[in-house]
Amino acid sequence: MAYFDNIPKVQYEGRHSDNPYAFKFYNPEEKIGGKTMEEILRFGVAYWHTFVADGTDPFGAGTAIRPWDHLKGMDLAKARVDASFEFYEKLGVPYFAFHDVDIAPEGDTLRESNKNLDEIVAMIKDYMKDSKVKLLWNTANMFTNRRWTHGAATSPNADVFAYAAAKVKKGLEVGKELGAENYVFWGGREGYESLLNTDLKFEQDNLARLFHMAIDYAKEIDFDAQFLIEPKPKEPTTHQYDFDVATGIGFLHQYGLQDHIKFNIEANHATLAGHTFEHELRVAREAGMLGSVDANQGDTLLGWDTDEFPTDLYSTTLAMYEILKNGGLGRGGLNFDAKVRRGSFEKEDLFHAHIAGMDAFAVGLIVAQKMIDDKFFENIIEERYETFNSEIGKKILANETNLKELEAHAIDLKDINIRSGQVEKIKARINQYLLNI
Amino acid sequence: MAYFDNIPKVQYEGRHSDNPYAFKFYNPEEKIGGKTMEEILRFGVAYWHTFVADGTDPFGAGTAIRPWDHLKGMDLAKARVDASFEFYEKLGVPYFAFHDVDIAPEGDTLRESNKNLDEIVAMIKDYMKDSKVKLLWNTANMFTNRRWTHGAATSPNADVFAYAAAKVKKGLEVGKELGAENYVFWGGREGYESLLNTDLKFEQDNLARLFHMAIDYAKEIDFDAQFLIEPKPKEPTTHQYDFDVATGIGFLHQYGLQDHIKFNIEANHATLAGHTFEHELRVAREAGMLGSVDANQGDTLLGWDTDEFPTDLYSTTLAMYEILKNGGLGRGGLNFDAKVRRGSFEKEDLFHAHIAGMDAFAVGLIVAQKMIDDKFFENIIEERYETFNSEIGKKILANETNLKELEAHAIDLKDINIRSGQVEKIKARINQYLLNI
Amino acid sequence: MAYFDNIPKVQYEGRHSDNPYAFKFYNPEEKIGGKTMEEILRFGVAYWHTFVADGTDPFGAGTAIRPWDHLKGMDLAKARVDASFEFYEKLGVPYFAFHDVDIAPEGDTLRESNKNLDEIVAMIKDYMKDSKVKLLWNTANMFTNRRWTHGAATSPNADVFAYAAAKVKKGLEVGKELGAENYVFWGGREGYESLLNTDLKFEQDNLARLFHMAIDYAKEIDFDAQFLIEPKPKEPTTHQYDFDVATGIGFLHQYGLQDHIKFNIEANHATLAGHTFEHELRVAREAGMLGSVDANQGDTLLGWDTDEFPTDLYSTTLAMYEILKNGGLGRGGLNFDAKVRRGSFEKEDLFHAHIAGMDAFAVGLIVAQKMIDDKFFENIIEERYETFNSEIGKKILANETNLKELEAHAIDLKDINIRSGQVEKIKARINQYLLNI
Amino acid sequence: MAYFDNIPKVQYEGRHSDNPYAFKFYNPEEKIGGKTMEEILRFGVAYWHTFVADGTDPFGAGTAIRPWDHLKGMDLAKARVDASFEFYEKLGVPYFAFHDVDIAPEGDTLRESNKNLDEIVAMIKDYMKDSKVKLLWNTANMFTNRRWTHGAATSPNADVFAYAAAKVKKGLEVGKELGAENYVFWGGREGYESLLNTDLKFEQDNLARLFHMAIDYAKEIDFDAQFLIEPKPKEPTTHQYDFDVATGIGFLHQYGLQDHIKFNIEANHATLAGHTFEHELRVAREAGMLGSVDANQGDTLLGWDTDEFPTDLYSTTLAMYEILKNGGLGRGGLNFDAKVRRGSFEKEDLFHAHIAGMDAFAVGLIVAQKMIDDKFFENIIEERYETFNSEIGKKILANETNLKELEAHAIDLKDINIRSGQVEKIKARINQYLLNI
Repeated sequence: MAYFDNIPKVQYEGRHSDNPYAFKFYNPEEKIGGKTMEEILRFGVAYWHTFVADGTDPFGAGTAIRPWDHLKGMDLAKARVDASFEFYEKLGVPYFAFHDVDIAPEGDTLRESNKNLDEIVAMIKDYMKDSKVKLLWNTANMFTNRRWTHGAATSPNADVFAYAAAKVKKGLEVGKELGAENYVFWGGREGYESLLNTDLKFEQDNLARLFHMAIDYAKEIDFDAQFLIEPKPKEPTTHQYDFDVATGIGFLHQYGLQDHIKFNIEANHATLAGHTFEHELRVAREAGMLGSVDANQGDTLLGWDTDEFPTDLYSTTLAMYEILKNGGLGRGGLNFDAKVRRGSFEKEDLFHAHIAGMDAFAVGLIVAQKMIDDKFFENIIEERYETFNSEIGKKILANETNLKELEAHAIDLKDINIRSGQVEKIKARINQYLLNI
Repeated sequence: MAYFDNIPKVQYEGRHSDNPYAFKFYNPEEKIGGKTMEEILRFGVAYWHTFVADGTDPFGAGTAIRPWDHLKGMDLAKARVDASFEFYEKLGVPYFAFHDVDIAPEGDTLRESNKNLDEIVAMIKDYMKDSKVKLLWNTANMFTNRRWTHGAATSPNADVFAYAAAKVKKGLEVGKELGAENYVFWGGREGYESLLNTDLKFEQDNLARLFHMAIDYAKEIDFDAQFLIEPKPKEPTTHQYDFDVATGIGFLHQYGLQDHIKFNIEANHATLAGHTFEHELRVAREAGMLGSVDANQGDTLLGWDTDEFPTDLYSTTLAMYEILKNGGLGRGGLNFDAKVRRGSFEKEDLFHAHIAGMDAFAVGLIVAQKMIDDKFFENIIEERYETFNSEIGKKILANETNLKELEAHAIDLKDINIRSGQVEKIKARINQYLLNI
Repeated sequence: MAYFDNIPKVQYEGRHSDNPYAFKFYNPEEKIGGKTMEEILRFGVAYWHTFVADGTDPFGAGTAIRPWDHLKGMDLAKARVDASFEFYEKLGVPYFAFHDVDIAPEGDTLRESNKNLDEIVAMIKDYMKDSKVKLLWNTANMFTNRRWTHGAATSPNADVFAYAAAKVKKGLEVGKELGAENYVFWGGREGYESLLNTDLKFEQDNLARLFHMAIDYAKEIDFDAQFLIEPKPKEPTTHQYDFDVATGIGFLHQYGLQDHIKFNIEANHATLAGHTFEHELRVAREAGMLGSVDANQGDTLLGWDTDEFPTDLYSTTLAMYEILKNGGLGRGGLNFDAKVRRGSFEKEDLFHAHIAGMDAFAVGLIVAQKMIDDKFFENIIEERYETFNSEIGKKILANETNLKELEAHAIDLKDINIRSGQVEKIKARINQYLLNI
Repeated sequence: MAYFDNIPKVQYEGRHSDNPYAFKFYNPEEKIGGKTMEEILRFGVAYWHTFVADGTDPFGAGTAIRPWDHLKGMDLAKARVDASFEFYEKLGVPYFAFHDVDIAPEGDTLRESNKNLDEIVAMIKDYMKDSKVKLLWNTANMFTNRRWTHGAATSPNADVFAYAAAKVKKGLEVGKELGAENYVFWGGREGYESLLNTDLKFEQDNLARLFHMAIDYAKEIDFDAQFLIEPKPKEPTTHQYDFDVATGIGFLHQYGLQDHIKFNIEANHATLAGHTFEHELRVAREAGMLGSVDANQGDTLLGWDTDEFPTDLYSTTLAMYEILKNGGLGRGGLNFDAKVRRGSFEKEDLFHAHIAGMDAFAVGLIVAQKMIDDKFFENIIEERYETFNSEIGKKILANETNLKELEAHAIDLKDINIRSGQVEKIKARINQYLLNI
């Protein structure tokens, strides 16, 4: 059965196309800086938002109209797999990502859940044989079920910890089975509702323990995926332990995990933490820890995770700049962890939304590569920091000076010639770059 | 000359006193848990807010009426010293803290500034001989002068870095001269206005360099103060490098500074970063890095640093709980980095405000000690995490298990008996504790 | 059947009681300023949070354990009615409030829904005969069902408007049948998801149309309840039309509704809009439009509606001050539009939470009445504005002067003696009031 | 003397120009929808930010390097006038705006201040004779001087009220003298620092009194400028009375001012209040009260007024859409109430910043006009609300139905065919519009 047979295969038609089912900027074959757009952008579809979510919000029931709505249980799970591969094909995206419970229903016990999972994983594997679509990452959902109320690895209940560990074990096995390029931990409940009843250190210790066990087991089964944590400051918890990238870096260092885990960075999580998306990408990049990206956008006038499809070209441009400077995303990708608005409930909206996001990142890529070719930011930086090419500047950078020598240098200085930062001029040029593509 | 001669020495008169110049709860001699309130609370006066600030805000001129307003330059600086010791005495606070430029005017060169500084430092030292007041901490102001526009240690200008280094050198010398118990770095400009013109890694490397030089020089001159950084997420910069405690921990680890520097935690900085005050204290405490406290409060409905005097008893209680669990503040203290409202411009308001803050922390201390005596939070935690006393729980905590064993434990589990977190009951009890003192 | 038979009737035991099922401050019979606490506080239980909600959040399934969980459909609806009256009785609250869909399941058509509703309303009416519990208010839920996705009265679909109108009609009839003292409109979807596809004026016109029709119909059926709208700035919509009280006042004036509708003010909605709870109460009170209160509290570090049970004594005190100055709440009440935390999932938590809230408002009442008796705020205001007793001040207030005369008064003025606002002193006294009860 | 003689007259050079002193999109003579860009956009320079402000921030001293820095008092004031007209000429902007204290120093009394003002006003008038530059609006600064600490018209001090009234009188006279097209009230201190010491109604009554007096006096002196208030939610006060447009509409209605005063809407004030810029424009437009615009942008991750030059093309496009739908700005204009960043301290930055802003609004204008020509939004709206062309829909809009009839219509309705809001598709098209100019 075809779930999307009224929708044509989406193809590149150029910037003036009126066809809503065409890409206007994303041309998978087009080379940018030596690689094709498809190779650089490594788009992924989020299984949960696109094939599972129904538009429920805290004040409302589901709204989505999906051709598989009449099904239940394993039948529903299988229909979604069928639909997903049809969707990947129509859209031409190379990756997908899922949580365990997205693809298969939970049973009464983990044994039963795993049995369901195995059946669907086999089905997906079959599909993958005849498809060029690959698994960007998988993960274990450890936040929806009631048992995770107070945390998974950070639960005050030892059985819950064990359950979480067992889910991760299965997740690693599934990842290996399907050739996942990454394995992601998103700790939706790994934080606290209230500090008043929480032993923060106990919980963080346990979180680190689970990560170490996972690393050990991946080695044991020879699953060589990149491990990623995904910072988020809050929601659903009041305070999440992996608040932002900088917090994550501290955590990984404190627990000796810094060589094993990188970051999956989500735009909307960045802004909820008070940072720009590009800031979080930069912090991870500079630490050598930029692993993958959850491509979406938030609404900074709202205080919750809206997971909108990314359309802000400033954001996609600056993100692509960081990604290109990182030498690309390696094994990571641009996973659309984004949901159609609750009011965009038609299946057609799933296409419109992905097209909007893919085009927005394609524009970002084109503009960012043009800036890099022109050494736009590089020249700004080189000129701005050039006083460090002076004698005293070089000594500072070489760690060959000290307070005494620097005092001698500074003690009678009168006019230090600091320069304008010229932010307005830079922003005007960025608009020019954007409009001149 | 006496600047505050209309104001009586402030003394403890008990909770029903109508005297606005009396403490109602802070009784310096009263023992709480074996130590006097004065020993535990270690209150400090912030020189800048109390003797220098004039009530200017981004839209308005100064409002403060101070008896030294008619003076200028070094005369003004000296009058403020006189006034400050009169103030400490009247209020009975044991500590004060200052930035270099608070106490002495800047000259045209650092040499001239240091000369001014030396003169005032000598005067302060003289006062300290006959006073029990001590220097909680000093620091170098590296944010007000135009030269710091783009940063101090993180400036793109090498001369500015040298100037900053020279100021820190002098700061350490002044600290030693006056017997400071701590030396604080607050990096008001150590961040960026815009990521568009910023080499983030270059700047953070330089920041770490300055810290290492400072540590080396303190050792060289045998100045054994505790070193502290003071996290703040933003303001005046768009993004500050020491965003919060967790970010600071990561930074200190990345640069090998974790054994040399602790945190000076400010309540209002915590809330600007999206955390509660007690969260930041807890994170630092659990990392063994809680050094000192800037005692104030913010207005969470406003997006800037309001530096209000602390009066919220929930906040002071939970803060004192963390401090007591930390075994006290060690060499740190409760520094009132707080300013009277712009509309509270009379010198009397300086007393009302400090009394409000001191009483609020005294109440917090009394309530927190009572809770500790009753093992209030300890019992909640013990009961809540008790499943980790089970066999599997113990193995987890002892790092003696792995995913396989945990899977075997969890695979057929049906009903995991998680417990209510009972936050509402806990909050009701805290109100009862508070009202029953 | 008794759903709460393990829980004793909650009674007042005084501030030192260790009984978690006792009131420590709320003593219904105690007279405060001439009336009993029960008469002043007019507490109400929110049917939806207490008997219907299950702890679902945007990332998690239900957690609540309720003795009626095994039931479905009308059986479930009836069990909840039984449980609710048992609950009101045990807790001793005089009021409750509900949305239509809280008490009875929706059918396939409105006709069927109304039939279900009629059956449950009859059952409730029966219970009310033998109970002193009364209906504070009822309303129609016009936000959960899919049809309300784009709004109810503000939907772009005319059938949806008609459906909303029909629901309101039935709501008014139910209110009359059960003797509701108020009828509330909460426009959860009356706003926009995106301005890009919204005709704002069209939608607001329609919203006003529905209010006028409701007023007309209430008159027609002789239902004399007080009409209330409940401002909220956002969530679930991106932007709600009744953003805050001031916005509501403007709307009611623009559409000639100002004499027919007052405000139901919710604490957490106030803070989401950037106001304090007391600000919203004040604005409504000064406009003569303070109708009723949804008593809860938010977490100002989180950006969504947390609907916590109110325990912050500062907030309850300042709220009770506004309410007492309003001459009480008239036909309104203090409805606990508050939900137990998702982690507080035991039925016992429902009691702990309500007790916490009732005690917090009782404390607020005691403190506020004491302040009023002492003319605490009144004296501050009288003294602060006393210059308006001068000749020029009186002329200003009497509208008997003009720019020319005022210029003549001011043109040579040199020293205007403005006074300190003394906020710190005032806050210290409020703490003293609180701790001395 | 020429203050900007190193800078060429700024002219349009087209989108690919590399000249930083050229417009790339703003072509004053180009016709868009029948009028020239210059006629539609009506750009204004804010005297205070551009000729007075020095880069001071709450933590730092001034940074700006201006060729008039060596002057003082009236000499400085005159130099700024010279510089300002040179600047308007070089940039080719048709309007400017000022507060009284921007252009002339305050004296010891208002009489002296007015004398200074008269001298500078005469000088400006002279310049205007030979220039095409006009005064968009003027106003009285009633927030900087200490006397306004607790408010101007809302001060608790009657003398302060009188002083404010006298300043407004002079402001109206100055406006008439210089042919101002508007007179603006920005009530920076018309709000409260704390509700604890505030009589909110008293203060709002007085604010309305001053507005009425100003209207009367303008009529008396035959000054026919458009009166404008400028909403802002907070800063410098904790809470400002004219929080946002909707609040302002309510206030104007309550005090019978709705026919005399419109709104001057600032982008950054909108976002501080939790709204988008376009929302505030829309609300004012629909009420027939859109008067003028303060063109800037904020940083939604920061909680204070950053007054950045507008460069976000989404914002300028949606703003221009509202303005064009309003039939233009009438007597209002696009006043750049925007300041160069503190780090952009060179005089050249003043040009870069204005060019950035003017180009951004020119792009916004081009895109918005194209959308209007295509009926882009109009078609979306028409289709979305088309069910109101049905019989029942028409009755609703004509106020010819009631709850009973609507119930009859709805009671057996089963499937209401609501449609997708298609926000993602709309956003993709907007990007296409933007990139295809």
